[in-house]
Amino acid sequence: MSTESEPPKVQEEVDSSSQSISKKAAKKEAAKKAKEERRKEAEAAASAASALSIEEEGPLANNYGDVPLQELQSVNDPQTGKWSEAVSGREWTEVGALNGSLKDQEVLIRGRVHTTRPVGNKLAFVVVRERVSTVQCLATVKPDSVSKEMVRFVRSLSNESIVDVIGVVSVPDVEIKGATQQVEVQIKKLYCVSRAAKTPITIEDASRSEAEIEKASKLPRVNQDTRLNNRVIDIRTLANQGIFRIQSQVGNIFRQFLLSENFVEIHTPKLIAGSSEGGSAVFRLDYKGQSACLAQSPQLHKQMSICGDFGRVFETGPVFRAEDSYTHRHLCEFTGLDVEMEIKKHYSEVMDIVDCLFVTIFDSLNNVCKKELEAVAKQYPFEPLKYKPKTLRLTFEEGVQMLKDAGVEIDPLGDLNTESERKLGQLVLEKYGTEFYILHRYPLAVRPFYTMPCHDNSLYSNSFDVFIRGEEIISGAQRIHIPEFLAERAQACGIDVKTISTYIDSFRYGAPPHGGFGVGLERVVMLFCGLNNIRKTSLYPRDPLRIAP
Amino acid sequence: MSTESEPPKVQEEVDSSSQSISKKAAKKEAAKKAKEERRKEAEAAASAASALSIEEEGPLANNYGDVPLQELQSVNDPQTGKWSEAVSGREWTEVGALNGSLKDQEVLIRGRVHTTRPVGNKLAFVVVRERVSTVQCLATVKPDSVSKEMVRFVRSLSNESIVDVIGVVSVPDVEIKGATQQVEVQIKKLYCVSRAAKTPITIEDASRSEAEIEKASKLPRVNQDTRLNNRVIDIRTLANQGIFRIQSQVGNIFRQFLLSENFVEIHTPKLIAGSSEGGSAVFRLDYKGQSACLAQSPQLHKQMSICGDFGRVFETGPVFRAEDSYTHRHLCEFTGLDVEMEIKKHYSEVMDIVDCLFVTIFDSLNNVCKKELEAVAKQYPFEPLKYKPKTLRLTFEEGVQMLKDAGVEIDPLGDLNTESERKLGQLVLEKYGTEFYILHRYPLAVRPFYTMPCHDNSLYSNSFDVFIRGEEIISGAQRIHIPEFLAERAQACGIDVKTISTYIDSFRYGAPPHGGFGVGLERVVMLFCGLNNIRKTSLYPRDPLRIAP
Repeated sequence: MSTESEPPKVQEEVDSSSQSISKKAAKKEAAKKAKEERRKEAEAAASAASALSIEEEGPLANNYGDVPLQELQSVNDPQTGKWSEAVSGREWTEVGALNGSLKDQEVLIRGRVHTTRPVGNKLAFVVVRERVSTVQCLATVKPDSVSKEMVRFVRSLSNESIVDVIGVVSVPDVEIKGATQQVEVQIKKLYCVSRAAKTPITIEDASRSEAEIEKASKLPRVNQDTRLNNRVIDIRTLANQGIFRIQSQVGNIFRQFLLSENFVEIHTPKLIAGSSEGGSAVFRLDYKGQSACLAQSPQLHKQMSICGDFGRVFETGPVFRAEDSYTHRHLCEFTGLDVEMEIKKHYSEVMDIVDCLFVTIFDSLNNVCKKELEAVAKQYPFEPLKYKPKTLRLTFEEGVQMLKDAGVEIDPLGDLNTESERKLGQLVLEKYGTEFYILHRYPLAVRPFYTMPCHDNSLYSNSFDVFIRGEEIISGAQRIHIPEFLAERAQACGIDVKTISTYIDSFRYGAPPHGGFGVGLERVVMLFCGLNNIRKTSLYPRDPLRIAP
Repeated sequence: MSTESEPPKVQEEVDSSSQSISKKAAKKEAAKKAKEERRKEAEAAASAASALSIEEEGPLANNYGDVPLQELQSVNDPQTGKWSEAVSGREWTEVGALNGSLKDQEVLIRGRVHTTRPVGNKLAFVVVRERVSTVQCLATVKPDSVSKEMVRFVRSLSNESIVDVIGVVSVPDVEIKGATQQVEVQIKKLYCVSRAAKTPITIEDASRSEAEIEKASKLPRVNQDTRLNNRVIDIRTLANQGIFRIQSQVGNIFRQFLLSENFVEIHTPKLIAGSSEGGSAVFRLDYKGQSACLAQSPQLHKQMSICGDFGRVFETGPVFRAEDSYTHRHLCEFTGLDVEMEIKKHYSEVMDIVDCLFVTIFDSLNNVCKKELEAVAKQYPFEPLKYKPKTLRLTFEEGVQMLKDAGVEIDPLGDLNTESERKLGQLVLEKYGTEFYILHRYPLAVRPFYTMPCHDNSLYSNSFDVFIRGEEIISGAQRIHIPEFLAERAQACGIDVKTISTYIDSFRYGAPPHGGFGVGLERVVMLFCGLNNIRKTSLYPRDPLRIAP
């Protein structure tokens, strides 16, 4: 069961910018060729660059150069390499930690060559980037440390190469505009740890906001598909570093909050026997000769875990939907945050958890992820989410009435479509000043068969949806825990009870009243940050046209 | 992308107690019949039981009964039901919180009927169980609250039914042997929230230790497959409640430790383009007309995330292996805990993380999960894991020498087999007094092609395995981050470089030295608790013969 015993899977790049298959094939071929050319170019550049580094002899030649493989395998053991000697016994300082307090001190930093700029023959600037921080470094010819050849070496560094820099921190009198850190590093030694080939997209281009592009019409715009095709470069941008650190934090707070409320984390299987009744929206596969499919949600297993006395459970894991949805908010694989819990009296107990949980997540993001949110906003400007300490709850009927009052007629027992959800979001914002609210008591007819009807009116159900900025992010409900009633409701919904007997049988041996909800992690991040596409908040997104990288 | 819009998947029960297909089919048919009979029986029992509860009229009749559906849908709104009135405005006390400090107080508890015992006509005992706690409750005929009919009702309750009990806490003089809580509840009111059908296995049988079974030879043994076929009942046992709470805690500490060390949580896709070179060990599927497979590990994508500048990343998620392994330690789907990080100088930096991380996990389990560990040990006795505050590290060569000294000859450049791993575990325990240690510098030939060779001897590699109680749980290494060298190594291992071009290309645009490791969550729990089968630590296990429930 070693998770490392297998070679990495083969990846095939797929061009997903076009939905036409024939176009796709042609584009694919072109992309392949372009890729092959890029590789050749890259290899040529790399060998040219490494040739550059071995021109000089003498003591100053030890202050720079490419680090050979043998040293990269281990610098801990006694060696004679110049890099090993230079970094031996030293600790690296993070670029983000470089500030005036380190003035005149010698530091060792590792980062990427963000940009280089030569000034004459004797000076070169290199901006070194480590994650979201950048610092300006200078190599000036000095008799005791920096040779002309070394300056030439520094300039020859390709962008995105990884370097170790040893230098002295200085504090210039004027503001440094091209870097986040307001100090400079006077380079004494510089070694290249990894040479980068010429990148198909530049970090600079990929980091530009729409406003900047529009201001100067000649600047290139890197579109979404190009980004995803070159994801390993694209995710280095400030905005993406922010987005995925925010995502990490959402998951963290989600779990910390639930654990503190006595929830237990579970892991349910994604491989499910049989084939779906739902039909098209499921990925099918062969499981050792049996027909199987990928779980569209952990619904069954999280409910089983409640019947199995775990009281309150949650799961974060992949969820698979084979839907042909080409929208800004659908993916074929996303990260589901799922919750299920016993109910003592009323489904509002589930809404109480949703309420506290999400207010805690939002508060925490605003407090802990300030830097990351700024990074995102710089490229994709957005207004901070408006939400209340106690989340607004409206009934579906109240929502319908608000829409009606605003001149929007909808079926009072039908579902809201995307447009009316948006409109209602607007009306709620105007009236209540919040962009985060719960709409509950949905019509029974628009919810899954296992949803508990309301006690006072069986046209409605003990269910709810939750909205951020006019878009649904959470769906939840009390479930029917009485097997006979569950069978009755399944039948009423046209489902063959035989096909769901395992599900129904789970409730025969004593089942507590319970309910729960499901959230898409990518949607939470997308809507909290006001982003326009869910592909921006999925690290390696999967949609009907994309299964790579 | 709502995670709730789909009906639960159809499940087919599979008998996996036999590996013969023909036997399997026959057994399946028999199981089906038995199941159908059970259901009929259960339905009859349930309707008989509910008939029992409506015999009496008068004020005392309000003190007991089955809670009707309408009340279970919501007790918050004004209603006339007797249960609603009884619990209105009250809070539930957890069974585990019942102790002498509540003497003479009236409490409301919810739990399962663990056992009932009638004493004559006027008295009935009922042990109520809530998760891992049980309390003895008494219903005695009293003119102002408990009628004879009510005592009859209490006795008629089937085991595993869920009840709400209102009663007064009393502290008996003698020790209570049949329950965890050392108080009794004098029942005033009792309502049945959910009637349980007769269970195919009893909690009592499923909770018995091997020693208890052997002591009294007539007691039934519930075998592993029967347990899994009835998992929703089986997981209610004390041991299972413990196991999965321990599992939840392992995941929690894993993430908390890594987050505190500046790791970022990522979610990588499980749907991967193309088909594996590895061959049989992969689940294949059709992805919108393209050939695809399920990820056997997040190897590629976690390394890409390092090339994408996240510095240090981790993931917890499902991992899929289509291997035909019928062992006590292999599953077709398990939860992978994966880590990848930049290395500054040496692969020991990765081992440092492994070391601190696991010592933190073990310490935390011993501190926080005392009750759960006791619960497991009660049914499956085990010695606490022996480990050191600073984890022992041996080189592979040292391990081979230790085996040789003990008379076990193995190939010094081959891999260890299960037997020699066990033996080495024994020798290490005898010599160093620890059951948790790291073995590193594995022969290059037995590691994946992307493993970094040692700087001083390319027959060995910058890699390691970690062992608990003589079994491997972690595999890790420094990876080759230089694309040209990676291609060379792939070729040397007989892999067609073209098929892994996406993987290799990820390292072309500047790649930091890095390494990582992978752990199976189920294995950690299994080996920490000294359990003999990984199916005991997977909530709904998947193996070559089992894909249900």
